[in-house]
Amino acid sequence: MRKIHVIGIGAGDPEQLTLQAVRALRSTDVFFILEKGEVKADLTRLRRDMLDTHLTQGTYRVVEARDPERDRTADGAAYSPAVGDWRSARADIYARLIAEELGEEETGAFLVWGDPSLYDSTLGILEEVLERGAVAFEYDVVPGISSVSALVARHRTGLNRIARPVQITPGRRLAEGFPEGVDDVVVMLDAHQTFQRFAQEDVDIYWGAYIGTPDEILVSGPIAEAAPRIERLRAEARERKGWIMDTYLLRRHPRD
Amino acid sequence: MRKIHVIGIGAGDPEQLTLQAVRALRSTDVFFILEKGEVKADLTRLRRDMLDTHLTQGTYRVVEARDPERDRTADGAAYSPAVGDWRSARADIYARLIAEELGEEETGAFLVWGDPSLYDSTLGILEEVLERGAVAFEYDVVPGISSVSALVARHRTGLNRIARPVQITPGRRLAEGFPEGVDDVVVMLDAHQTFQRFAQEDVDIYWGAYIGTPDEILVSGPIAEAAPRIERLRAEARERKGWIMDTYLLRRHPRD
Ligand SMILES: C[S@@+](CC[C@H](N)C(=O)[O-])C[C@H]1O[C@@H](n2cnc3c(N)ncnc32)[C@H](O)[C@@H]1O
Ligand SMILES: C[S@@+](CC[C@H](N)C(=O)[O-])C[C@H]1O[C@@H](n2cnc3c(N)ncnc32)[C@H](O)[C@@H]1O
Repeated sequence: MRKIHVIGIGAGDPEQLTLQAVRALRSTDVFFILEKGEVKADLTRLRRDMLDTHLTQGTYRVVEARDPERDRTADGAAYSPAVGDWRSARADIYARLIAEELGEEETGAFLVWGDPSLYDSTLGILEEVLERGAVAFEYDVVPGISSVSALVARHRTGLNRIARPVQITPGRRLAEGFPEGVDDVVVMLDAHQTFQRFAQEDVDIYWGAYIGTPDEILVSGPIAEAAPRIERLRAEARERKGWIMDTYLLRRHPRD
Repeated sequence: MRKIHVIGIGAGDPEQLTLQAVRALRSTDVFFILEKGEVKADLTRLRRDMLDTHLTQGTYRVVEARDPERDRTADGAAYSPAVGDWRSARADIYARLIAEELGEEETGAFLVWGDPSLYDSTLGILEEVLERGAVAFEYDVVPGISSVSALVARHRTGLNRIARPVQITPGRRLAEGFPEGVDDVVVMLDAHQTFQRFAQEDVDIYWGAYIGTPDEILVSGPIAEAAPRIERLRAEARERKGWIMDTYLLRRHPRD
């Protein structure tokens, strides 16, 4: 039976790999690396560097393929009605890769950015491939350090306040307003700096871009003061690197 | 200047340590291990085993102290008005440990269960110690695999659904009802099996106890079917081990 590891590799710092992830890398015959377009070339390089660091050359194969995913980080527009088609196109590719590139007794791996549980479609796609029934395999998931954990660690703050909830939400949801019933909100996949909406409110922001990488930028403080700095730094960085990856925690002063 | 690492050690599986955490362990002179009563003796042992595995004996010291924390896991009753006093009592202990047990040029470490950002008071207490001004130090935070990431990895599911938010909440908040505006809710620190409230609703549960340890138990399914099994397994395990640590994801079928 074919085996597949879905391995969370952390959100930028190669030392965020867990010992369990290193062990899973070492038990893998074939790595599937899905290219997500030019802006993500840096992220592909980071994956290849990890393999070089932890594995002996010649003991594994790497299969690269084009991933039809739209770049949600860059334009936030992936959530169109076409999302179903897009997922099914990806399932076609994954099914083909597994059937053609992985031997019946071999182990394959997908290296997932951050933690596979957060805003990542690998698990959903593998389930879809299995449901179709054309190729059979077992799979397991190795958790990783998410950009959320990395963000708050760098800011040396918690996600929740004592006995209170925290919400993690995509930027486009935040555009509808501050979520009900929570005062701590982590925002991901926000291409539109939606935090600006709350610049007049009693909210602190903890923002980070390229967290864990040499390009890391961190800004925190009352949102009215921090927002203009973030806008400027974000625009400069995006200009310089051609793409940006940022996440932030909004902490509202509790009203109840 | 004294240095302190706040190191997330994962939520039960010693292989959840990251490479960064191992590096931080190796740069530490003094480990502070705070005993939280008998039920947590197993967790103290796991920390000591980690040190044995990754460090050379004689290159570090371990300082154990009594932690005045109430056991929130066991009785869920830590959120009394006394929470302020309790935090201040802990700050006294931490301040004394740092001042008396850590040399001016040395590095200390607190080993935090899971990820330091989730329902853990270490960062808040260190900030309080610094504010008092009696002892100075620098500190950094090493993120860890939380029990939340571990839970969903073992169930091979995501936290969020596509383009949707997820909330993490303490059990006693859930007792007030299913949170507004979200359909995926992770519940921690629930001593009262609050999920039973939703047994008549169209909700799936992904439950885990002692995740990542040899005692791990996992149950998932429609809540009406899963709840009685969880109740039984949970009662048996708690009886057998004397304490329990469990977390679950509730996934409601979206209504909008
Ligand atoms: C498709 S999601 C994947 C999240 C990933 N699975 C995780 O656990 O972090 C991509 C989003 O994660 C966030 N992100 C990922 N890595 C980041 C980093 N190093 N710095 C800042 N944000 C990051 C950004 O909000 C980005 O839009
Ligand atoms: C005080 S909180 C600390 C959480 C920790 N910082 C983390 O990141 O997982 C303790 C709660 O975490 C959850 N928990 C921690 N470890 C767990 C494990 N191995 N299995 C199941 N639940 C766990 C339980 O809900 C428990 O009540």
